[in-house]
Amino acid sequence: MDTILTIGSHSSLQILHGAKKEGFKTIQITPENRVKFYSQFPFIDKVIGYRNEDEAVNYINDYSDNGILIPHGSLVEYIGSERVKKISTKIFGNRNLFEWEANQRKKMSLLKMSNIPTPMDFESPEDVDRMVIVKLPGAKGGKGYFVAKNKSEVKEGLNKVLSAKLIKSIDEVIIQEYVIGVPMYFQFFYSPILNRLEITGIDIRYETNVDGLRRLPFNLNIEPTFVVVGNLPAVARESLLPKVFDYGMSFVNTIKERVPPGMIGPFCLESVVKDSGEIAVFEFSGRIVAGTNLYINGSPYSWLYWDEPMSVGRRIGREIKLALNENRLNEVLT
Amino acid sequence: MDTILTIGSHSSLQILHGAKKEGFKTIQITPENRVKFYSQFPFIDKVIGYRNEDEAVNYINDYSDNGILIPHGSLVEYIGSERVKKISTKIFGNRNLFEWEANQRKKMSLLKMSNIPTPMDFESPEDVDRMVIVKLPGAKGGKGYFVAKNKSEVKEGLNKVLSAKLIKSIDEVIIQEYVIGVPMYFQFFYSPILNRLEITGIDIRYETNVDGLRRLPFNLNIEPTFVVVGNLPAVARESLLPKVFDYGMSFVNTIKERVPPGMIGPFCLESVVKDSGEIAVFEFSGRIVAGTNLYINGSPYSWLYWDEPMSVGRRIGREIKLALNENRLNEVLT
Amino acid sequence: MDTILTIGSHSSLQILHGAKKEGFKTIQITPENRVKFYSQFPFIDKVIGYRNEDEAVNYINDYSDNGILIPHGSLVEYIGSERVKKISTKIFGNRNLFEWEANQRKKMSLLKMSNIPTPMDFESPEDVDRMVIVKLPGAKGGKGYFVAKNKSEVKEGLNKVLSAKLIKSIDEVIIQEYVIGVPMYFQFFYSPILNRLEITGIDIRYETNVDGLRRLPFNLNIEPTFVVVGNLPAVARESLLPKVFDYGMSFVNTIKERVPPGMIGPFCLESVVKDSGEIAVFEFSGRIVAGTNLYINGSPYSWLYWDEPMSVGRRIGREIKLALNENRLNEVLT
Repeated sequence: MDTILTIGSHSSLQILHGAKKEGFKTIQITPENRVKFYSQFPFIDKVIGYRNEDEAVNYINDYSDNGILIPHGSLVEYIGSERVKKISTKIFGNRNLFEWEANQRKKMSLLKMSNIPTPMDFESPEDVDRMVIVKLPGAKGGKGYFVAKNKSEVKEGLNKVLSAKLIKSIDEVIIQEYVIGVPMYFQFFYSPILNRLEITGIDIRYETNVDGLRRLPFNLNIEPTFVVVGNLPAVARESLLPKVFDYGMSFVNTIKERVPPGMIGPFCLESVVKDSGEIAVFEFSGRIVAGTNLYINGSPYSWLYWDEPMSVGRRIGREIKLALNENRLNEVLT
Repeated sequence: MDTILTIGSHSSLQILHGAKKEGFKTIQITPENRVKFYSQFPFIDKVIGYRNEDEAVNYINDYSDNGILIPHGSLVEYIGSERVKKISTKIFGNRNLFEWEANQRKKMSLLKMSNIPTPMDFESPEDVDRMVIVKLPGAKGGKGYFVAKNKSEVKEGLNKVLSAKLIKSIDEVIIQEYVIGVPMYFQFFYSPILNRLEITGIDIRYETNVDGLRRLPFNLNIEPTFVVVGNLPAVARESLLPKVFDYGMSFVNTIKERVPPGMIGPFCLESVVKDSGEIAVFEFSGRIVAGTNLYINGSPYSWLYWDEPMSVGRRIGREIKLALNENRLNEVLT
Repeated sequence: MDTILTIGSHSSLQILHGAKKEGFKTIQITPENRVKFYSQFPFIDKVIGYRNEDEAVNYINDYSDNGILIPHGSLVEYIGSERVKKISTKIFGNRNLFEWEANQRKKMSLLKMSNIPTPMDFESPEDVDRMVIVKLPGAKGGKGYFVAKNKSEVKEGLNKVLSAKLIKSIDEVIIQEYVIGVPMYFQFFYSPILNRLEITGIDIRYETNVDGLRRLPFNLNIEPTFVVVGNLPAVARESLLPKVFDYGMSFVNTIKERVPPGMIGPFCLESVVKDSGEIAVFEFSGRIVAGTNLYINGSPYSWLYWDEPMSVGRRIGREIKLALNENRLNEVLT
């Protein structure tokens, strides 16, 4: 187990950059048209281009003896959930979480079981009695999401995404109360080896076109869209951190119980902070999020835990190295 | 004098992290329910939980022989201004500034005496002839602040905060011209030991729900609130810096004259930059601000002064160490 | 060739800070009233104040034997394009680009020749059939720029800037389609010595008063202005990077062909990212941009290329040092 591989997208640069720093061989498996781009980075030992998703799985499985695949938000999106099941190479993290994440309702239930405040959700458009955001399934970076002020706007919007074939059935979407406040995405790393939870950073998503429209001084009657194209750094008031940390710890405990073998490595609680100081978590990510790309040389929080530059990518490599040294690799791979 | 202590909140993590790097023992004194949170950090030697504010003062005074308390924006808020007077342990910085800061009008007068441009302020709601922001006393992170376009909106808003018992009398508030421009918070550190002023960073406050409301494409008829829940990093055009630096230096000179023994350590000029290039300072903080939490590994500006990672927390520790080495501790403590 | 000089403004601090780290003597040439400000930084060996622009050119030319001038966005603005032609001291970068940049239409043509998607532009106000932004010539940080929803608003706005004498003739402006999306400024460094293109960072401009107006919950009927007063950091989705990198490479190839001796050092593609994932480049800068001031200790991207703190200022110094060591200085100076 001396090789770390990932799919060329999302957060692969920091994953491989960090893996190399921790002494691993690094393999990038990526769509053919990105081979040239990734080949420029000296910390990537080998860049393998794939022509289709089956080929990608084969390339990953070529390393089932000595390789560890680091999953990220684009893995399922690029490879497809069915093909991901055919990956025989070991994965860093808990692969059982994938199917919980595939279903928005099951996903939200894990937050609720953790007693983390979440926005109200509505089973049917008929039940809507306040402003909501309607979310489509899959990790498509917010594509097709829309905000609706009331029942009739929900129905109108659903008809649009149905006719645009972004979904097949209304059952696929989640209709969630739109919480008034500011977004903050709290990034964590749970270490089974050190038996501790670390706050690794905070980010805000940068979304087009909504973050552009609001700069304009007049109303253009353009439907806002919520496609994530980047991330912005932030820190939180220190007095929020103990609560946020409690939520993280509670979530780790729930996953341990409900989705064995439990949380391994990075995750994120996507939140809204209200003016009452309450924090509502409207989504989670069970693995490394793209917002960590901000902190390739460490975040304001990671510097508190590690007095060296520690990206989440490197933190993953470090966890694997620590596990290897203690002969506990089975505790971090699935 | 080998121990640095602070109240567990605000910017305490960077203060103690920095103190440890400079070789001090570190003590965290914090509300009991945060003891677990703070205990996870290896750079904190001892975490002491308090049940009430009197207890907090007692714990602080236990270190009057060898401890130095680093005050921050939450000290007065948590402990109360009357109890703060009972602190016998030495404080880094000028404790005489506390009472100037307690009164918004006295506070603003220090800026005016420094010939720093400030927004116009109105003695009475009757005098209001333009858009204003009404500010409540105390460091409550913007809670209850409101913007009003004219006289009648000011009166309406004041009635609301009076009936919500956020204030006892209209005299407590400050009614300030709302300057059109963008906020920038200029952070400084004045070193009595090196006899120099350093720009330590710039931040923008991240406020709920105002920074969330503006993302929405339609008007919700929700009153915006201005509760600070975090901070965002920024840099300024380099051509603004000489002017900003002059304002900082002028402020240091005013404090030296009016509030002996003068400015010691971190302070902040909270400003709005207009499209004319003018800078209006609408508030100051006489000690470390939470926006410095962004720069735990140094800011774009601190790297120019120090070729090592230098948070403001660490800078405080460094100043005390420099003072100790030169037997000039009395110049930085009060 | 052991001395690096620059004009005291824009990004001069990082340029000289980086030059000193790479072992050069550093000279700051700056308006007299900033001499005191710049003199505080120990990495600047000599600060020379000038009383007028002719004097500035003379001071620059005093170093024609052993000095290299690093140009930045304020050079032409401060010194004037005619005087810049009289600079006999060697310049790092391609000075032939100056005249291409002086003319907005010639400038945009370089992007089009590179097959980089650009916003549509309109020859005459009469042709306008959509929302546009009207841009004034010169690097004045967005002063006078305005957005117009239609033909008649364009005409109205042009009359205003004409009567304010911000321009002499309508021919000086560029009328450009206002692309709906979010701004992202992609910073690059092309190294002739290493024969490679590096992504050095991403920023968003912080503009007054437009970025302030949008925070207000009500419409003030104030004309927004777009004066750049600072920069905010950001990262992009990793999946955007290969495309952005291709644009950068294509631009480098165009400049090699059309503006010999080609691109040398830093440049920037100022872009809007649409919700379709498309990227429109609405402007470029042929030298170091102020947004790099965010990354004095390195950016999330520079850390991938260099495992040491590498500002763009330092990167320039490094390129010159590499060129000196290989006796190839003529390839990076003009």
